[in-house]
Amino acid sequence: MSIAFADRMSNVHKSFIREILKVTQDPSIISFAGGLPNPASFPVREISEAATAVLNESGESVLQYSTTEGYGPLREYVAERYARRGLKVDPDEVMITSGSQQGIDLAGKVFIDKGDKVLVERPTYLATLQAFGLYQPEFRSISLRDDGPDTAEMAEELATKKIKLFYAVPNFQNPTGITYSQRKREDVAALLNEHGTAFVEDDPYGEIRYMGDDMPPVKKYMENGVLLGSFSKIVSPGMRLGWLVAPKEVMENIVIAKQATDLHTNFFTQRVVYQYLITNDVDSHIMKIRAMYRKQRDTMVRAIEKHFPEEVRYTRPEGGMFLWATLPEGISSLELFDIAIKEKVAFVPGQAFFADGSGQNTLRLNYTNSGEEAIETGIARLGNAIHRLMEQKK
Amino acid sequence: MSIAFADRMSNVHKSFIREILKVTQDPSIISFAGGLPNPASFPVREISEAATAVLNESGESVLQYSTTEGYGPLREYVAERYARRGLKVDPDEVMITSGSQQGIDLAGKVFIDKGDKVLVERPTYLATLQAFGLYQPEFRSISLRDDGPDTAEMAEELATKKIKLFYAVPNFQNPTGITYSQRKREDVAALLNEHGTAFVEDDPYGEIRYMGDDMPPVKKYMENGVLLGSFSKIVSPGMRLGWLVAPKEVMENIVIAKQATDLHTNFFTQRVVYQYLITNDVDSHIMKIRAMYRKQRDTMVRAIEKHFPEEVRYTRPEGGMFLWATLPEGISSLELFDIAIKEKVAFVPGQAFFADGSGQNTLRLNYTNSGEEAIETGIARLGNAIHRLMEQKK
Repeated sequence: MSIAFADRMSNVHKSFIREILKVTQDPSIISFAGGLPNPASFPVREISEAATAVLNESGESVLQYSTTEGYGPLREYVAERYARRGLKVDPDEVMITSGSQQGIDLAGKVFIDKGDKVLVERPTYLATLQAFGLYQPEFRSISLRDDGPDTAEMAEELATKKIKLFYAVPNFQNPTGITYSQRKREDVAALLNEHGTAFVEDDPYGEIRYMGDDMPPVKKYMENGVLLGSFSKIVSPGMRLGWLVAPKEVMENIVIAKQATDLHTNFFTQRVVYQYLITNDVDSHIMKIRAMYRKQRDTMVRAIEKHFPEEVRYTRPEGGMFLWATLPEGISSLELFDIAIKEKVAFVPGQAFFADGSGQNTLRLNYTNSGEEAIETGIARLGNAIHRLMEQKK
Repeated sequence: MSIAFADRMSNVHKSFIREILKVTQDPSIISFAGGLPNPASFPVREISEAATAVLNESGESVLQYSTTEGYGPLREYVAERYARRGLKVDPDEVMITSGSQQGIDLAGKVFIDKGDKVLVERPTYLATLQAFGLYQPEFRSISLRDDGPDTAEMAEELATKKIKLFYAVPNFQNPTGITYSQRKREDVAALLNEHGTAFVEDDPYGEIRYMGDDMPPVKKYMENGVLLGSFSKIVSPGMRLGWLVAPKEVMENIVIAKQATDLHTNFFTQRVVYQYLITNDVDSHIMKIRAMYRKQRDTMVRAIEKHFPEEVRYTRPEGGMFLWATLPEGISSLELFDIAIKEKVAFVPGQAFFADGSGQNTLRLNYTNSGEEAIETGIARLGNAIHRLMEQKK
């Protein structure tokens, strides 16, 4: 007997990255394809101490059911950290989520009706296309410049297309590494305010800035912004702990959706991470991660300068985990992928990050999960592969 | 500027239970309203040892991102436990979820289109009405007898109403405590097979049987059943760890939905719980929980026999955490609630568990989170309240 699935399942496909990651299991392949933090950045001993402490001190409570919104002191901690970055947030406006990915899904559930127009950056975070895609919107894309979206284009979209929601990653975007300028933050916020468009600001990498000045979230300039954050890049991604900030009226709906989705976020982990945060020097831990990633980023940028044909353009991220390369027009990164795998190096072809199916000549490179020697060798191999492909196409 | 939410948000309300639980925060109130396991059943020391062990042995790996399907050995463990209960399951057919509540949400996402007819028991698990409700089905209800659903009525529904999916809790149902007989299991499966109707079998209490013989899941007799389970009642609910069993074609869609929802379930917790399971005598731990709950259940049944008017009917559960009482026709459990709160005892009025809004004279009582003295005293108070209300209505 055949099974009847919901319509929404007919539009989505398994993550392309997921399939690629399977190919790159081969240990002889140097992979820039994944999006993994460097495990050397995980505070293993400190987490172990924190787990022992909370179980000793309040074991029965940390293993029991808890509230949908999350652990109060952890919500306060998140609010306090935003205050330091210039954003005033009430702890009641913070929900602890199962990673910031869940924040994306909850926002989709609460805002998106079938057929609604959702505006995303070109390119955008792949897993948002998947999460939002299950609520069956019509995606529209806005061009991304080196300092953020093309605001003239955005103004036109908002004025003429009845956009329900805008989704963006303003800091060190996945996949491009691009960061919004201060000017673009304020302009984007003003446009969204003007049209009453909902905004989901995804900021999982915000604290991982190793160059330039920190800038406040776009939400600072908005009435109704939803802001997503994550402990994945500063503590541990495997623990799936993030947060969602939203004004009261939005939060009431998010709470309903969250409760229906999984009752509440793992309380044991919330308590362990909170214990870790208050008993350790988190800022110096983050400084270490920044220094580590800065070095890896510099190594990759230098290697690219040395090994890539000069026609290849690439971003120079001020933070985060990814760098984005654009091959000359007509050179396909999917074709490059096949050659690169033979050269024993992997990346993610960029097309998967485009809601409109463009971007055939782009690729994403992760530098946080490879040692400096591997980065040097891998980029040399990739440079060879690009040279070979460009030769073939001449 | 007013915010435009998705249509689906207009049909749902905050959990009624959630609101009730706030009223019952008063420590002078004896509450049978919650659905909490007895914290004395949590293996705190063992979990602490397991956490230390996995962090010592493979800290960097347990804190890293992991696979959407869940930790392989934990999936095998789940499959092996089902084998002991007479159900053959391949580990590939098991996904680790953020509690069984997430399994409900994922099934809703994968199966339910707006307007689809979803059949539930009358009454049914409240949080399923909420989770499925966000996918906007039309709920239909089937009468529940002492040994399971009315199969004649069910045959009629399936034959005439184009039912997309049936949801049920065949063991020690929340809210009624009712368990399907062996005959009903086979009959229900045969009906669903005949009509090719999807089935979500929710079994969070399956291992918590303290009377009568264990029976295999209904899925044993089905082609396409989805079966949900949970570690909440045998290890810890705060850790939000459950699983979903589904045949390959369904699982492929569930994996897509899960990945979009939160990438994967907390890997640290999966590893800690697996470590706990393989280094402890879980069966003897479950025996202890069963003995504890059996005693609490017996105390409540005896107290009801003594204190409730004889016109009140009630279930005598063979497992799980809840008992269900039915007041005489025309006596409202909502009115009773107000009187009971003054008597310093709380419960959940049953109406919230009915998709069709009936059940005004029913109530749910939890016995696992109160000591024997509190059960005795609380039921005496509740008996008084019922007597008073019935007097008033004469």
